[in-house]
Amino acid sequence: MTYCVAIKLNAGLVFLSDSRTNAGLDQISSFRKMMIYEKTGDRFMVLLSAGNLSISQSVREILQTTQIKDRDDAEGVTIWNAKSMFDAARVLGAAVRHVHDRDGAALKRSGVDFNVSLVFGGQIKGEGMRLFQVYSAGNFIEATSETPYFQVGESKYGKPVLDRVLTPDTPLDEAAKCALVSMDSTLKSNLSVGLPLDLVVYEADRFGTDKVVCIDENNPYFRMLHNSWGQKLREVFDSIEDPAWNGGSTQAPILMSTPRSKPLKKITTPQDKLI
Amino acid sequence: MTYCVAIKLNAGLVFLSDSRTNAGLDQISSFRKMMIYEKTGDRFMVLLSAGNLSISQSVREILQTTQIKDRDDAEGVTIWNAKSMFDAARVLGAAVRHVHDRDGAALKRSGVDFNVSLVFGGQIKGEGMRLFQVYSAGNFIEATSETPYFQVGESKYGKPVLDRVLTPDTPLDEAAKCALVSMDSTLKSNLSVGLPLDLVVYEADRFGTDKVVCIDENNPYFRMLHNSWGQKLREVFDSIEDPAWNGGSTQAPILMSTPRSKPLKKITTPQDKLI
Repeated sequence: MTYCVAIKLNAGLVFLSDSRTNAGLDQISSFRKMMIYEKTGDRFMVLLSAGNLSISQSVREILQTTQIKDRDDAEGVTIWNAKSMFDAARVLGAAVRHVHDRDGAALKRSGVDFNVSLVFGGQIKGEGMRLFQVYSAGNFIEATSETPYFQVGESKYGKPVLDRVLTPDTPLDEAAKCALVSMDSTLKSNLSVGLPLDLVVYEADRFGTDKVVCIDENNPYFRMLHNSWGQKLREVFDSIEDPAWNGGSTQAPILMSTPRSKPLKKITTPQDKLI
Repeated sequence: MTYCVAIKLNAGLVFLSDSRTNAGLDQISSFRKMMIYEKTGDRFMVLLSAGNLSISQSVREILQTTQIKDRDDAEGVTIWNAKSMFDAARVLGAAVRHVHDRDGAALKRSGVDFNVSLVFGGQIKGEGMRLFQVYSAGNFIEATSETPYFQVGESKYGKPVLDRVLTPDTPLDEAAKCALVSMDSTLKSNLSVGLPLDLVVYEADRFGTDKVVCIDENNPYFRMLHNSWGQKLREVFDSIEDPAWNGGSTQAPILMSTPRSKPLKKITTPQDKLI
């Protein structure tokens, strides 16, 4: 499995991916799930992929040579000459459909779903940053300020912290920290997500970045974050009072039914009716 | 959808369930997902259910009258006379199979999976506490000290805190707090899980409990926990340093590649080879 997250902020974009694939007990492999496409000063794009590895690798392989034409006499649009990220996402969708045309029927005969989930974001000179999630059918949706992030793969473990922290105004490095905490929670609860991680932080209107890092178990920042987060979370947990079940001497909020909510009726004999 | 969690500790058992069902945008209903079976001084059992509501309600309806017989001349075993929780879990499995025999084919014709997940735990006089997870096929697994909890329904959002906190030695009220934090994270990230909650805390060897509570949005303890947890989590998040991208004057651990991990190669022109 996989966990990838991409965040779109006013200040820039953050991309983070793990590298665990085929996490059976005896077949653990590591594959990078991030691709960076950069033409310095002109365009900067990052692709994250989850799902069937043979499909996502095929999509990545043909993405650079895929063209779309809106009219027969039009010049082909590629990710390298697209005038907008929307058009670049259409090229990516076309690449997905191309792989489907090639492999879909054979996969289906073998009982394998055509399953690929992609996140594709970046900036092309002349417009703002954009972030898309591309589905197996080649269709896609775009992140808005109300939904500033996309996740693919094992997304649920790490979602609460994203929901608590992220807004479009979140600073870039804070968002990178948030993505790493989200990944840390996922690593903690799901064996099928694993190190090393790939992290990219892109500042708006730079059309390039040198903030590209591979994080393994020896990375000092990730180790610090992993240890601090676990320990401090535990301290916060301990600092919250346990529920009190009576009104004795404690000033703690009492855990009790409020008048409108009836506690469950117990079934105490075989003849009792169910509620 | 649903989120239920049950925890088995040396000190006792904790059960927590939400009550949201059919959470479409315009069809939100509230159904209790917990049943308590108690014969004071003799047995105490709690059933949590997730999955198709028509199936879980049918299972609950027939559970009390379901008998299993190992030999034709044996006395029928029910949840009220079973000598062990293992046998009581077998009765529950038989009830699930009975509903499958009755409804399974018709559901299949309508394209509906026979989908039900149950957690069933408690104590019967003469043995220790036991906790089981029962599947749609009526088979089941038992919690051990290495795996002190079971979840059904939307389990992933709330799993990290359980993994961080719970051991068999965790005190009962602390485990109840942990279950409530786990539920709070789930409520935060998933619309299909909703208040009110049902919480039961059972102390070992009591064969009964008065710690049964229904928690709605006015419950003072849950409100305190919800607000404190969100706020303190944010404080912890803020207290962890943001990643630093250079070795300048900061003493913070630097986010950088360790020697063995190569950062991703960027694709900078259409001719670049994929890594």
